[in-house]
Amino acid sequence: MSSNFGQKIKISIFGQSHGPAIGVVIDGLPAGELIDMDELSAFLARRAPGQSSLTTARRESDLPKFLSGILNGRTCGAPLSAIIENNDTRSSDYSKLQDIPRPAHADFPASVKYNRYNDVRGGGHFSARLTAPMCIAGGILKQMLKCRGVSIGAHIFSIADVCDTPFDPVTVSENDFLNTASKPLAVLNDDAGSAMSSAILSAAHDGDSVGGIIECGVVGLPVGIGEPMFDGLENRIAQSVFAVPAVKGIEFGAGFNSSKLRGSENNDPFCISDGIVRTLTNNHGGILGGLSSGMPLIFRAAFKPTPSIAKSQQSVNLNTGTEETLIIAGRHDPCVVPRAVPCIEAAAAIALADFLI
Amino acid sequence: MSSNFGQKIKISIFGQSHGPAIGVVIDGLPAGELIDMDELSAFLARRAPGQSSLTTARRESDLPKFLSGILNGRTCGAPLSAIIENNDTRSSDYSKLQDIPRPAHADFPASVKYNRYNDVRGGGHFSARLTAPMCIAGGILKQMLKCRGVSIGAHIFSIADVCDTPFDPVTVSENDFLNTASKPLAVLNDDAGSAMSSAILSAAHDGDSVGGIIECGVVGLPVGIGEPMFDGLENRIAQSVFAVPAVKGIEFGAGFNSSKLRGSENNDPFCISDGIVRTLTNNHGGILGGLSSGMPLIFRAAFKPTPSIAKSQQSVNLNTGTEETLIIAGRHDPCVVPRAVPCIEAAAAIALADFLI
Amino acid sequence: MSSNFGQKIKISIFGQSHGPAIGVVIDGLPAGELIDMDELSAFLARRAPGQSSLTTARRESDLPKFLSGILNGRTCGAPLSAIIENNDTRSSDYSKLQDIPRPAHADFPASVKYNRYNDVRGGGHFSARLTAPMCIAGGILKQMLKCRGVSIGAHIFSIADVCDTPFDPVTVSENDFLNTASKPLAVLNDDAGSAMSSAILSAAHDGDSVGGIIECGVVGLPVGIGEPMFDGLENRIAQSVFAVPAVKGIEFGAGFNSSKLRGSENNDPFCISDGIVRTLTNNHGGILGGLSSGMPLIFRAAFKPTPSIAKSQQSVNLNTGTEETLIIAGRHDPCVVPRAVPCIEAAAAIALADFLI
Amino acid sequence: MSSNFGQKIKISIFGQSHGPAIGVVIDGLPAGELIDMDELSAFLARRAPGQSSLTTARRESDLPKFLSGILNGRTCGAPLSAIIENNDTRSSDYSKLQDIPRPAHADFPASVKYNRYNDVRGGGHFSARLTAPMCIAGGILKQMLKCRGVSIGAHIFSIADVCDTPFDPVTVSENDFLNTASKPLAVLNDDAGSAMSSAILSAAHDGDSVGGIIECGVVGLPVGIGEPMFDGLENRIAQSVFAVPAVKGIEFGAGFNSSKLRGSENNDPFCISDGIVRTLTNNHGGILGGLSSGMPLIFRAAFKPTPSIAKSQQSVNLNTGTEETLIIAGRHDPCVVPRAVPCIEAAAAIALADFLI
Repeated sequence: MSSNFGQKIKISIFGQSHGPAIGVVIDGLPAGELIDMDELSAFLARRAPGQSSLTTARRESDLPKFLSGILNGRTCGAPLSAIIENNDTRSSDYSKLQDIPRPAHADFPASVKYNRYNDVRGGGHFSARLTAPMCIAGGILKQMLKCRGVSIGAHIFSIADVCDTPFDPVTVSENDFLNTASKPLAVLNDDAGSAMSSAILSAAHDGDSVGGIIECGVVGLPVGIGEPMFDGLENRIAQSVFAVPAVKGIEFGAGFNSSKLRGSENNDPFCISDGIVRTLTNNHGGILGGLSSGMPLIFRAAFKPTPSIAKSQQSVNLNTGTEETLIIAGRHDPCVVPRAVPCIEAAAAIALADFLI
Repeated sequence: MSSNFGQKIKISIFGQSHGPAIGVVIDGLPAGELIDMDELSAFLARRAPGQSSLTTARRESDLPKFLSGILNGRTCGAPLSAIIENNDTRSSDYSKLQDIPRPAHADFPASVKYNRYNDVRGGGHFSARLTAPMCIAGGILKQMLKCRGVSIGAHIFSIADVCDTPFDPVTVSENDFLNTASKPLAVLNDDAGSAMSSAILSAAHDGDSVGGIIECGVVGLPVGIGEPMFDGLENRIAQSVFAVPAVKGIEFGAGFNSSKLRGSENNDPFCISDGIVRTLTNNHGGILGGLSSGMPLIFRAAFKPTPSIAKSQQSVNLNTGTEETLIIAGRHDPCVVPRAVPCIEAAAAIALADFLI
Repeated sequence: MSSNFGQKIKISIFGQSHGPAIGVVIDGLPAGELIDMDELSAFLARRAPGQSSLTTARRESDLPKFLSGILNGRTCGAPLSAIIENNDTRSSDYSKLQDIPRPAHADFPASVKYNRYNDVRGGGHFSARLTAPMCIAGGILKQMLKCRGVSIGAHIFSIADVCDTPFDPVTVSENDFLNTASKPLAVLNDDAGSAMSSAILSAAHDGDSVGGIIECGVVGLPVGIGEPMFDGLENRIAQSVFAVPAVKGIEFGAGFNSSKLRGSENNDPFCISDGIVRTLTNNHGGILGGLSSGMPLIFRAAFKPTPSIAKSQQSVNLNTGTEETLIIAGRHDPCVVPRAVPCIEAAAAIALADFLI
Repeated sequence: MSSNFGQKIKISIFGQSHGPAIGVVIDGLPAGELIDMDELSAFLARRAPGQSSLTTARRESDLPKFLSGILNGRTCGAPLSAIIENNDTRSSDYSKLQDIPRPAHADFPASVKYNRYNDVRGGGHFSARLTAPMCIAGGILKQMLKCRGVSIGAHIFSIADVCDTPFDPVTVSENDFLNTASKPLAVLNDDAGSAMSSAILSAAHDGDSVGGIIECGVVGLPVGIGEPMFDGLENRIAQSVFAVPAVKGIEFGAGFNSSKLRGSENNDPFCISDGIVRTLTNNHGGILGGLSSGMPLIFRAAFKPTPSIAKSQQSVNLNTGTEETLIIAGRHDPCVVPRAVPCIEAAAAIALADFLI
């Protein structure tokens, strides 16, 4: 087990940040599905670095090269594979990390797990760069879900203590998703967006970083998708979403807040609307008993602040067993949240496609 | 896919609330492991109903009957199976639910998913009663993990707006676990426990219910357990924990709160303590890059209030397509959290055993 | 991994020959499927011992008790589970086997694998008795496949050196299956059946045993079932069929004989028949590239002679490390093939259901 | 499900014969394992075409390019991936096959399965060319197994009606494997090899093809490897071996021949040799109850003759629904067996590595 996901649509992600290439294999796709390469490129561009002053100065073209599974623009039933060749890497930045693990990174446990044979350059296989192949898979699956009437969109719910307007859990629609996806910072409320930018730039100025929360919505799901117990929508989306680096929490619908409500407040009354069974409110976030209820699926993922900061930090030298002060060089996002928005959409698409395609 | 979990230790849970029996098969256990049946019974008793005025008046003996996999008190290498026969059921309580789904329950999506052929009595396969076989598996695996130096324990972090003292994420130990497990209400602070009882009884008095949060700790994990991306500890524990009914959120370490911190606050500095690499703080909750760091693993699961309340609620009649007022009869816990504490421990044990045993 | 099979229809088999019960869990069945219990009983009766002078004198009622997954005679979407309680066991017959492994049985490698903690009574989990729950699963799935137009049937192709008339690979039909299933010895040619009986009785008279070959046919498969490479029909049927004890070989279509043919002889020419693409001959056994071709699927499984014979044999004492002469007491079939016919059908049903249901 | 194999060592194979590249991802390899690239190249060369007059005139360099998972010659714990770029392809040879399926190939069922969207050029994903990435995986795993004391080797057991000397199932050793691997035609008896060459050339001269049987041995397996029922060594090796195109049968030990023996002939008596439990004969082929017995593991795989022959054949036009005469152009091996020898070794390595590494 490890960088694999899915039972019907099987995804296998490979690569290290500074290796020759990163990539993905997607097995189980139906044949004859059109893939809109422009739409995929636009999706990947939302994750790509170097877009603005808020993100790392690294520039990665990140254009996927398809090796199999596509013929004349359509899936051909064979496993689809795509790679991104790594070009703009500065491995010398990481030479010291072989011995001195960066706080809040995978360096230390990975060095123990792999007996120091792991590739530490850029975090190796644990790098957030691996979200690029994840987004290739997610972007393709998102298109296929859309053909089946299911739309996925996310926005920045908060950065530091600045909050965007939440999705309305009852009325959220694909228009909201198109709206936020078109902006440099994926927010509903542009004033909140400006305040978030300030918070990020302020942290960057201090050689520091900030975290945030991404909220994701899914509309158009048929009723009854998901399986009981271990393969409910919550289980599988959570498993997929925690693959995005820096995620430390996930909640569905009212989530943690529902723990403070009474049943009479939290229960969503059923109603009939245009002959369809719906609920008047949506504290359940579109999932009951692990199954889709037909209401919008809503979840939020909490991101910790970027671990790599310019400030000096205390670490240890694994060779000498002594404590050392570490200063991390290199180019890092002061906040991973803006670029992680499509990653969360991709994670949701990967989890849902396994049920729906 | 559905009521299965695990790749090395495979668990398959079956049964409906009011069917002949519920049970579990555990495949992949090593042979020769002693199972302490008294300890298992004590563990299951913590989940059993009818313990106090806080829980449902239903009485279930819930004694597991082992059908295979054990010989002379030890595992024999063959799949272990155990069942609990259902005795104290009042199915007439549920006759009306065939047509009128209970708000916040799986009834509605299940009736669509299974074309109305699902067993609605007591929630059928979606019943919280299915946590009994989950606790059989979890209780056995918890013992095996303990033999390997890994201890798991949970407490009620909050009920409604009453909070217990949190686990200290740096110093939490097995003693804390033994302490809370021995109490009728699993709390560190007995005053908080009393206030929680009051909150539950007050809700019950109002024909209502309350939710809460359970915090779980794991100590003794070796460094480097877990796999990258989709099979990290967070991914797999989350997948397992969402199998416990009513869970709507999960967070690890500082979790959602870390989204508000700066990197310099959230990053846990490494130090050397008795020759061992540790961190001075534990905002990462013992998991870095999906891998165990050697620090205590800490997570919290948010529970919504019990969906079944005595108050009248609005629902719909699936046959007539009209809105109807529903009054739920039957016996229900005004708060699922107290009895869910061992379920969360079981879910953690199931997820960790798949990596460790 | 071990006593589990399937990705969509997941089967988990448990139990030891002399434990409290043996059973099966089937997860992933669609809801609302009628199960014909009489037909299932008739199917299980074909495997049951004590039918004639050709099989063991043990009598097992082998009536399955359903614990979950069925409501009012139909599947309800929850995992289906069934057990058979073990009654007629004479464990004292096996006391000596703890130390002295029976030749051609799993005793020796199992004792090493499980560090002597395995249940040796009656072969424990390795007993052919475990084909009973396999037949419960297979019998149910066979019914569901039949509802989808797919029929499965098998006959005794040979016992010792006596051969039945083979299935005609082009014209074999469900009538052939009904014909052989109705007989005490599942053969097309009753003269061959008589000669087989003589061969078995002759071996029994000598305190010896004989092997044989079972041929299985599947008609009604849609074209294109199966997946490339590791999950082709041959791969998956082989994986399932080798779960039947004593099987040592499998071949599809012309099988081993095709290795002696030239391409111009072995290739089956395509033709059009009633607007349907078919082949004039069927050396490919209905499978091309792992996928069903629409022609009857034909395979043969080779069974070794029953390992348990009355003659004295050379073995070793695992405690003392010395060679010893072993005489096996107990009641054993002089040939497993007659009772294994429904087991092979069950194995085929289990493999195909995972693709088709 | 499809081009994936393994539970601990997960292999995902991708690519089409005439697509940009073919490749493999291997997930779950331990870190720090040295990979001998020269040995791997030598192994791959045994499968490569263009070696002699017996194989296709196509020349493929087939040098794998490693994209991830290797650092300084050792595995680094991250998924290992490798690709082979396709250069020497003549797709025009296949233009007609879009409509007229080749007898005994996957063309027809694949065109139905994938709604005519499949890549027919060179058989697409069903091409025997996909054994190249399979051999990359198998070659690497074979090296890792050898480090653990397990050696795998195969030879041509027969071609048409010419038979090589079989492996001695009791005394076969790594020397036999080294011996056959070093020859252009992997046989023990060079006279048999010459006769095989003649049989192949004679078929080629006639515009025809021949089949054959490959026998594979594994020595050094510890006792007790394998799992009961569906995941025994026979089950898993069979699942893996049928991934090699043209395989139509597999047998272990005495295999089909054991069906004609009596128990007293087929049972292998246990003995003690140098303090080790062994058997005097090895009709069981090193596997009892699905578990390794410590004796050499022996199996044979039957290959049908190459489907592509120069002779004219009857097929159908899928567009017009009429029968047509097909003449296959292109370059094809008159017998796939010589080049398939390392493929069978690779299939065995892939199956065994999942248990042993």
